[in-house]
Amino acid sequence: MATLVNSGGGTTSNDAATKEEFVSLFDRLKSDLLSDLSCLPIAQDVKQELEKYYERALTYNVLGGKMTRGLTVIKSAECSLSRLLTASERHDAMVLGWGIEIMQAFFLTADDVMDQSHTRRGAPCWFRVPDVTAANAINDSLAMEAFIYRLLRKYFSSSPKYVKYVDLFLSMTYKTIVGQHLDTNAQQRREGELCLDQSRFTMDRYVAIVRHKTAYYSFYMPCALGMIVGGIEDDAAFQKTEDICMELGQYFQIQDDFLDCYGDPEVIGKVGTDIQENKCSWLVCQALQRADESQRQILIENYGRDDLSAVAKIKTLYKTLKLEDVYAAYEEEAKVKIDNLIASVESASLQSLFKFLLSKIYKRNK
Amino acid sequence: MATLVNSGGGTTSNDAATKEEFVSLFDRLKSDLLSDLSCLPIAQDVKQELEKYYERALTYNVLGGKMTRGLTVIKSAECSLSRLLTASERHDAMVLGWGIEIMQAFFLTADDVMDQSHTRRGAPCWFRVPDVTAANAINDSLAMEAFIYRLLRKYFSSSPKYVKYVDLFLSMTYKTIVGQHLDTNAQQRREGELCLDQSRFTMDRYVAIVRHKTAYYSFYMPCALGMIVGGIEDDAAFQKTEDICMELGQYFQIQDDFLDCYGDPEVIGKVGTDIQENKCSWLVCQALQRADESQRQILIENYGRDDLSAVAKIKTLYKTLKLEDVYAAYEEEAKVKIDNLIASVESASLQSLFKFLLSKIYKRNK
Repeated sequence: MATLVNSGGGTTSNDAATKEEFVSLFDRLKSDLLSDLSCLPIAQDVKQELEKYYERALTYNVLGGKMTRGLTVIKSAECSLSRLLTASERHDAMVLGWGIEIMQAFFLTADDVMDQSHTRRGAPCWFRVPDVTAANAINDSLAMEAFIYRLLRKYFSSSPKYVKYVDLFLSMTYKTIVGQHLDTNAQQRREGELCLDQSRFTMDRYVAIVRHKTAYYSFYMPCALGMIVGGIEDDAAFQKTEDICMELGQYFQIQDDFLDCYGDPEVIGKVGTDIQENKCSWLVCQALQRADESQRQILIENYGRDDLSAVAKIKTLYKTLKLEDVYAAYEEEAKVKIDNLIASVESASLQSLFKFLLSKIYKRNK
Repeated sequence: MATLVNSGGGTTSNDAATKEEFVSLFDRLKSDLLSDLSCLPIAQDVKQELEKYYERALTYNVLGGKMTRGLTVIKSAECSLSRLLTASERHDAMVLGWGIEIMQAFFLTADDVMDQSHTRRGAPCWFRVPDVTAANAINDSLAMEAFIYRLLRKYFSSSPKYVKYVDLFLSMTYKTIVGQHLDTNAQQRREGELCLDQSRFTMDRYVAIVRHKTAYYSFYMPCALGMIVGGIEDDAAFQKTEDICMELGQYFQIQDDFLDCYGDPEVIGKVGTDIQENKCSWLVCQALQRADESQRQILIENYGRDDLSAVAKIKTLYKTLKLEDVYAAYEEEAKVKIDNLIASVESASLQSLFKFLLSKIYKRNK
């Protein structure tokens, strides 16, 4: 077993070994899903085509990410139990971790069709793969979602925790969809062109988008799943975790938005395009809050235009409005707020989970 | 209570009154879903926009169908119990019935985007409504799906049947998605144009599509939900129901395919376009089984072309191959097979459910 006491937490497993073990479980789960398909009452040749297709769809869409969400389930279970996991607990946490990774694939394949994106994780978006098409990609997104519940059923249907796992996946999906809706509809079109809608780029909407679209499934969900694996049943503990994860998720997304404009493309691995793409970014929401009438006009005329001089005008305005300072102040404030929330958690071991998550993102530059 | 003993079954409620009661429940469930949204931690103005949007999406996409699936849940629960339902059982059956109707909306809004359809139930497809767009429609399809589980949770989460309901909805969704995949990929393109692929228009694939895409959620699911409401727990009874519903669903779809070509447009309410649209119809699968080399050539050259003379050639070939007679023979054979399956059901009351379903479709002309 690849479990070692590491130098930090004392009760969490060695990161590299855990990651390797986690990755190696994927093939097993993929075979489970394909065997499950092969139990359907379908003629052999048709079934073979199905299996081949989904083998490819799963590999293409589920792998290639950083797997932070999946790995966090293991960490959370360890912190919930304040000890290393048994082989069986570890396996449960890893299956659930892959459940979140498959959920991520479900959202991303659909999002890419919705946004008509081009690349994802350095490869063409799934719907742009020539023999896939948008019709298949939409259905494959639904298939990914369905696969999650096939795995939960296979591994947990006789466990008293089954209904908790299913309910959590379902409710996180619901919240993410609501967040996606708010995000999609923050964008307005004028005569077919994207344009900035002042009434929609508000901090109220921004916070609602970020929490629902990102914080729940990326932060709260892995923590909560690990807590269930760890046998925590106290509602107040889950509420506290939710409060902290909402702040962590919001901080994480605000960083993302900041780095899109101010990060070093060499370090973040991409050139930001939020301004051109009319994104409801933290920066534009902050700018709108601070702009006077003439500055507001600059925003309206230049935001969301795929034109380098328009982008330059927006960036100059951000500079005039000192958004880098606003961000630095927000970052410190968020840190204090999250530190205080973490300090109010009863279990020292759970505190270390949140501290770990915060340490992964505090002052990140990529 | 609108429950009356009708002339037929003796233990089933009056159809018109039941339908009225069923319809009237929709507004209540819609409010439940909107109140549920309003519990999310979102600022008031953003939340109002959300509620307004989903009120419209639900009304537009869930209503307007024949509601056969939803109403069948009530009938099935009555037949499972061999008596009229109590108010509470009736309410349960109706909530579950609306669950299937919302599931239908989930599939149809996504299907319409996948197929780039134009109209649905006499109105523009949801994604074609100007301020909706495909991006929203894809997400709304996911929202419809999520709404099902919000309702199940609200009404049944404290019931021992909760996990059965959730599992059934999840597994029927999975099967339908697989069916949709097989259907989408029965279509081939040659240089961007739809074309007939002989190796894919086989009866093996046809049966797999029809059972998974239609029979499970349209026939088996309403019966099975009603049986759970009625307290049936015997796996063999569910298996028997599945066997019968697979045949009923297949028969129903074959009729649909037949009527698309041979039905009276005045009666069926539309002009069939399966030939032009290159659909994997029962007729083309049968034609391919019976065609000699030159007839096969006619199929390859003319099927899937939006051209009246090509369609006429296909119809002439169908006539030459006597597909009307093949259909009549199939219909009689299916009737006998289903009758025999029904006769093997132990409960006379459940037999009456299947007889009722068969009577609704046997020799239908619309």
